[in-house]
Amino acid sequence: MTPTTERTGLWLIGAGGSVAATVACGLAALRAGVAGSTGLVTARPELEDVGLADVADLVTGGHDVTTVSLAKRAEELAAAGVVPHDLPRLVAHDLDEASTRIRPGYVVGAENQRDAVERLADDLREFASREGLSRVVVVNVSSTEALVVPHPGHADVEALESAWDAGESPLPASSVYAAAAFRAGCAFVDFTPSAGARLPALEEMAAHAGLPWGGSDGKTGETLLKSVLAPMFAMRALDVRSWAGTNLLGGGDGATLASPDARQSKIESKAAGLEALLGHPVEGPLHIDHVADLGDWKTAWDHITFAGFLGTRMTLQFTWQGCDSALAAPLVIDLARLLDLALRRGESGPVAALGFFFKDPAGLDEHALAPQHDLLVRWARGEVAADAAGGASSR
Amino acid sequence: MTPTTERTGLWLIGAGGSVAATVACGLAALRAGVAGSTGLVTARPELEDVGLADVADLVTGGHDVTTVSLAKRAEELAAAGVVPHDLPRLVAHDLDEASTRIRPGYVVGAENQRDAVERLADDLREFASREGLSRVVVVNVSSTEALVVPHPGHADVEALESAWDAGESPLPASSVYAAAAFRAGCAFVDFTPSAGARLPALEEMAAHAGLPWGGSDGKTGETLLKSVLAPMFAMRALDVRSWAGTNLLGGGDGATLASPDARQSKIESKAAGLEALLGHPVEGPLHIDHVADLGDWKTAWDHITFAGFLGTRMTLQFTWQGCDSALAAPLVIDLARLLDLALRRGESGPVAALGFFFKDPAGLDEHALAPQHDLLVRWARGEVAADAAGGASSR
Amino acid sequence: MTPTTERTGLWLIGAGGSVAATVACGLAALRAGVAGSTGLVTARPELEDVGLADVADLVTGGHDVTTVSLAKRAEELAAAGVVPHDLPRLVAHDLDEASTRIRPGYVVGAENQRDAVERLADDLREFASREGLSRVVVVNVSSTEALVVPHPGHADVEALESAWDAGESPLPASSVYAAAAFRAGCAFVDFTPSAGARLPALEEMAAHAGLPWGGSDGKTGETLLKSVLAPMFAMRALDVRSWAGTNLLGGGDGATLASPDARQSKIESKAAGLEALLGHPVEGPLHIDHVADLGDWKTAWDHITFAGFLGTRMTLQFTWQGCDSALAAPLVIDLARLLDLALRRGESGPVAALGFFFKDPAGLDEHALAPQHDLLVRWARGEVAADAAGGASSR
Amino acid sequence: MTPTTERTGLWLIGAGGSVAATVACGLAALRAGVAGSTGLVTARPELEDVGLADVADLVTGGHDVTTVSLAKRAEELAAAGVVPHDLPRLVAHDLDEASTRIRPGYVVGAENQRDAVERLADDLREFASREGLSRVVVVNVSSTEALVVPHPGHADVEALESAWDAGESPLPASSVYAAAAFRAGCAFVDFTPSAGARLPALEEMAAHAGLPWGGSDGKTGETLLKSVLAPMFAMRALDVRSWAGTNLLGGGDGATLASPDARQSKIESKAAGLEALLGHPVEGPLHIDHVADLGDWKTAWDHITFAGFLGTRMTLQFTWQGCDSALAAPLVIDLARLLDLALRRGESGPVAALGFFFKDPAGLDEHALAPQHDLLVRWARGEVAADAAGGASSR
Repeated sequence: MTPTTERTGLWLIGAGGSVAATVACGLAALRAGVAGSTGLVTARPELEDVGLADVADLVTGGHDVTTVSLAKRAEELAAAGVVPHDLPRLVAHDLDEASTRIRPGYVVGAENQRDAVERLADDLREFASREGLSRVVVVNVSSTEALVVPHPGHADVEALESAWDAGESPLPASSVYAAAAFRAGCAFVDFTPSAGARLPALEEMAAHAGLPWGGSDGKTGETLLKSVLAPMFAMRALDVRSWAGTNLLGGGDGATLASPDARQSKIESKAAGLEALLGHPVEGPLHIDHVADLGDWKTAWDHITFAGFLGTRMTLQFTWQGCDSALAAPLVIDLARLLDLALRRGESGPVAALGFFFKDPAGLDEHALAPQHDLLVRWARGEVAADAAGGASSR
Repeated sequence: MTPTTERTGLWLIGAGGSVAATVACGLAALRAGVAGSTGLVTARPELEDVGLADVADLVTGGHDVTTVSLAKRAEELAAAGVVPHDLPRLVAHDLDEASTRIRPGYVVGAENQRDAVERLADDLREFASREGLSRVVVVNVSSTEALVVPHPGHADVEALESAWDAGESPLPASSVYAAAAFRAGCAFVDFTPSAGARLPALEEMAAHAGLPWGGSDGKTGETLLKSVLAPMFAMRALDVRSWAGTNLLGGGDGATLASPDARQSKIESKAAGLEALLGHPVEGPLHIDHVADLGDWKTAWDHITFAGFLGTRMTLQFTWQGCDSALAAPLVIDLARLLDLALRRGESGPVAALGFFFKDPAGLDEHALAPQHDLLVRWARGEVAADAAGGASSR
Repeated sequence: MTPTTERTGLWLIGAGGSVAATVACGLAALRAGVAGSTGLVTARPELEDVGLADVADLVTGGHDVTTVSLAKRAEELAAAGVVPHDLPRLVAHDLDEASTRIRPGYVVGAENQRDAVERLADDLREFASREGLSRVVVVNVSSTEALVVPHPGHADVEALESAWDAGESPLPASSVYAAAAFRAGCAFVDFTPSAGARLPALEEMAAHAGLPWGGSDGKTGETLLKSVLAPMFAMRALDVRSWAGTNLLGGGDGATLASPDARQSKIESKAAGLEALLGHPVEGPLHIDHVADLGDWKTAWDHITFAGFLGTRMTLQFTWQGCDSALAAPLVIDLARLLDLALRRGESGPVAALGFFFKDPAGLDEHALAPQHDLLVRWARGEVAADAAGGASSR
Repeated sequence: MTPTTERTGLWLIGAGGSVAATVACGLAALRAGVAGSTGLVTARPELEDVGLADVADLVTGGHDVTTVSLAKRAEELAAAGVVPHDLPRLVAHDLDEASTRIRPGYVVGAENQRDAVERLADDLREFASREGLSRVVVVNVSSTEALVVPHPGHADVEALESAWDAGESPLPASSVYAAAAFRAGCAFVDFTPSAGARLPALEEMAAHAGLPWGGSDGKTGETLLKSVLAPMFAMRALDVRSWAGTNLLGGGDGATLASPDARQSKIESKAAGLEALLGHPVEGPLHIDHVADLGDWKTAWDHITFAGFLGTRMTLQFTWQGCDSALAAPLVIDLARLLDLALRRGESGPVAALGFFFKDPAGLDEHALAPQHDLLVRWARGEVAADAAGGASSR
């Protein structure tokens, strides 16, 4: 199977944010031949021959609740050192074009929710038709939502339709976008810890439509490290006694997390895996704090105490200083290429093999990075079935 | 296959050092039921049913160049917090008995080298016979030697015998112990970066005798972390640009490394894997320093710069504060149990599956911890042949 | 002026805790000549000739709400590495004697508050008389209290007496101890962030009695570092933009701080100085977390961003791994010697010169360590008057 | 005393390097009113009213061994994040003008040394005359030299002249520049650890000419921190047991230090103060390493072990991530303003009060930052005589 000349759409929810602007800059730079493939997992040799869509054949579009000039956003990213100094100027034309493909987003309460789903789905259909796209993958890179408030309308499609009949707005915004994606025949993946497709009604919608989806919450820093360090302790039979983490974030994501509700959503997503990785609960505070001065950067400090032979206490600390947009953007492109593959293969439901990318992997109980990577590669090569994670289920 | 009532000897080169004394304390504590299996890889569930010798059936002995009271050594370890406050008193009887099983070691130049091999081999035979042991595993935990000086006698057994005929002493001490082990029908494993069995003449000796061996240089700190962090960067297509490391060591090992020759030996062993893990060379100083005040503890600080998408620079730092003896001792016990298994299975040559334990794995090109762990488990379960590392060869 | 053969009492509130037990061990060790003066500020050359009481002439006693065996507590400290392995055995006799000088403490609500003050004051008078002490210094090293709830009875002595007349218990425990100290003619110093003498009614009581006092909240880790690092940034005109701090504490203090009320008290005390040191407010979260596995140890990680010339952003991080008891105990002895000097000199009110020791210095607006040290030395030498901090006032 | 409308020259040795280019950008930005005074010690309130030359009245010039375009250098600094993204464009005109004031530097061996001194002095005289400058301060910000090789001609001016008579080149380049400065009636200050004015013959030259000078080796990172942390330990009577430091440097300075000779020069300068600060020697390796990937940035990691009361061991670690040019440039401007003041006051010899800025302060034995700052402020205010450091002498 070789890449075709077909084109695939990458539709971003939060199309004017830092991650989306970095995706746009990056795709333009790759097309222009002025950037390499660093950070792109799908450019690694082990995924080279599995027939993924060519990066040059991805077309971006998206929804955002504010008006966006990607060119202006890119200038800010360059001033902050997120993208190279002179890149925005080089790709200004592409960014201006991409800006024209952004449509007004959805705000809970501002319009009838059922109508909103149709409006957003229409945007997706129009995008596919106008651009001549074979398939479209929708990726949510908007701000983290508050923990979802349970509602009877989440239970199944029928209950959801009843709630809508009653004029209610039972879904959080992320799930509204997921619903629109499934209505329009698109794959959906949530790069945030928001609910997205992970409500029973939404899962049912995807299943009915026979569409693949993935999530949640891209693993780009502290959790990425946990997914290799915790297995290291386990493989060496070292007894992790405490694991404390402090995350300092600037920028948009940090500001969102200044809201205790959104923070709680993020913390639950982050904490999910550690106990699974270690096989036992472990004490330790986990903080996420907004430090505006950090801008697009984030710093995570983790402090781990562990006991060795005869109980001797030892310590590991790490400090991760990362640029969130630079870490997330290539993974968003990876996810578009991999879900495009899933669409072509006609897979349906949560794609467990994408768990490699996520803090809270849908359809997968495995949180260790190395086996997640093995699964991803074998799935991409067609060596395991889509539901191979066996017994695993989205929570 | 279930554990038998047979007993296995664990013969330690450097039997009076911190690691050996911690092994002795630990085995006594395990027999007395006052210690758990933390740090013992062979106590992990995945290695439970492979028929390893029971820890209680291991009998220690060893060589050392100085007179040793393990009880006194254990008191020092307790004062330093390496073993629990009150353990030495509880196991004093066992330690006194273990001290009686220590024999005078070998010092290069102090006796005829061929005679020394025979004397040391006799010690091993006498140990096995007196204690009624079915098999003996020799583990080198003595101080790090200087890089070996090439000598024609290293080429093969015949050349070695010629050198000995001429009254020469071509082997470093670690290889003299390895030769004695192979003469006496024992397995040999080098927990240090010394030459040990890794000279062609010694490999030939092991092959003729049909004996298994392993090494080199136990992976207990910085390199252990490298073996999970470097693959993490690689799996995520992040471009590691520099990797600087500073290792501060107190105690005996630190003092030995104050000698530039021994330090060079250690540094070469440590550096070996990083390029292999990343797939390309990477700049960065690597220091090993003696800081007497740290006693039995060591601290490693690593500073890693890496580029993400579009070249954005990011940083990871970690600080590892470990107690070397507490980290090494359980692995020495693991190696005794695993080489005992190899002896029972009649395996010969370098046991590639033990690469999981080493900075510079004999017979294995893989340096990443997760696949090393998989190989270890599958080998222990008899799912792969001893030479399964396929094409791999000791350097 | 030379030390006399008079003896001075050091009365500890929280006499059975880790700090108090370390004080007792240390005084005994100093008397026995098996310990040096490390950590004792009053043993520094610049305070040698100011006529302080000899350490050997200090006699300890104290209040505690639980029954205490200092010998047993010392054993636990030795097992945890806080005091040397074999010290408890060497000084067991002294510790047993010191245990007999501990009296039942005060619990809010368990007895009439006015009666309690009298009972505690009687304990102090009896201690002084029985031991033949010239002066007594009371030091609060008990657990951190919740932030004090305002009460009309705090306003002045008259209002306090009225509240007591009405059978009320307006004072937090720390202030009850301070009242008892002043009733019994003793100096009082609060090593915790509790209210202690820092209520107007208590200040008035001290003034009427003509007694010196000091506080609050011993500076033993993160804040100590802030008191030299923040002035460094200021002296170099570097613009500190954020200062985030995470404090991980085990042991008793950590457990107390698991209570949000006590934590708030501690956080307010810690945060007080930074703005004063930098001359402007600075963003940054400040966390205090309980991590039981740390035992008597605490770890502080601070992350500071600052701007240099033309706005370039830079970063400083530090990790402090300290043993709270080992840091606090010598300062408690220092405070006893220095307040003994103030008593002899007939000083009254808050001793501003003791601000060197505290996060929240009573009577002093200066938070930088170097000028605090200068003030301390000049005061001890009699070069500045007791009220020399000029215009400074306890909050 | 108010600033006059006189203008002062700031002549930079290494005028095309990162530090000099940052100085040029900064002065231009300050003149244009687009930058603040962050990092300028002389802009602090305590130095406001001492009559320093206005920053706008400083005129730059300098020597460099290569041809220089400051505008091009500034573009590189902007791309690296050292100066703001858009600053080079804003001040391009000023930078082009400043570039015209750079003259060819001196290379040892390339010309007769005595003639070179005259040529360089002529450049200084021509600069002063052409620009109508009242005074000129020469600051060496070129690369670190190797440790100076002793030569009889260093002993005094007479010996130096004799060596020159014999056609020899006894002086390192930094001292040739110092000689030229003194010949031309300028003040001289060495911001590097090179010999500069610190050879007896040069000191004699300055004394004969009645000129002030200062040095050596600007304190911009690890040593700055040592100068507040070591006094903190001392004031608290804590016993520092080891102090290990690793410095990772990219850029020009880092590359220079890849030469073992220059590195040794830097290490000796750095190590000088710690023993003086602590009052006793302390073990610990000190590394300076080149890591090209760090560019203009440097990272210092220090690991300090210390004993508290009863010998309990504790640890402090810090990581400093600084931009050398952004840290050094404002101090160079400060030194120009302060030595201009010294020139106006007619001071001669090493200005001890400038020790605040240096790792290896000429004329001052004090290495602690707070008393150095006090001395600087009192000297600038005219409260202490120039030779007030009393008994202190340049080594």
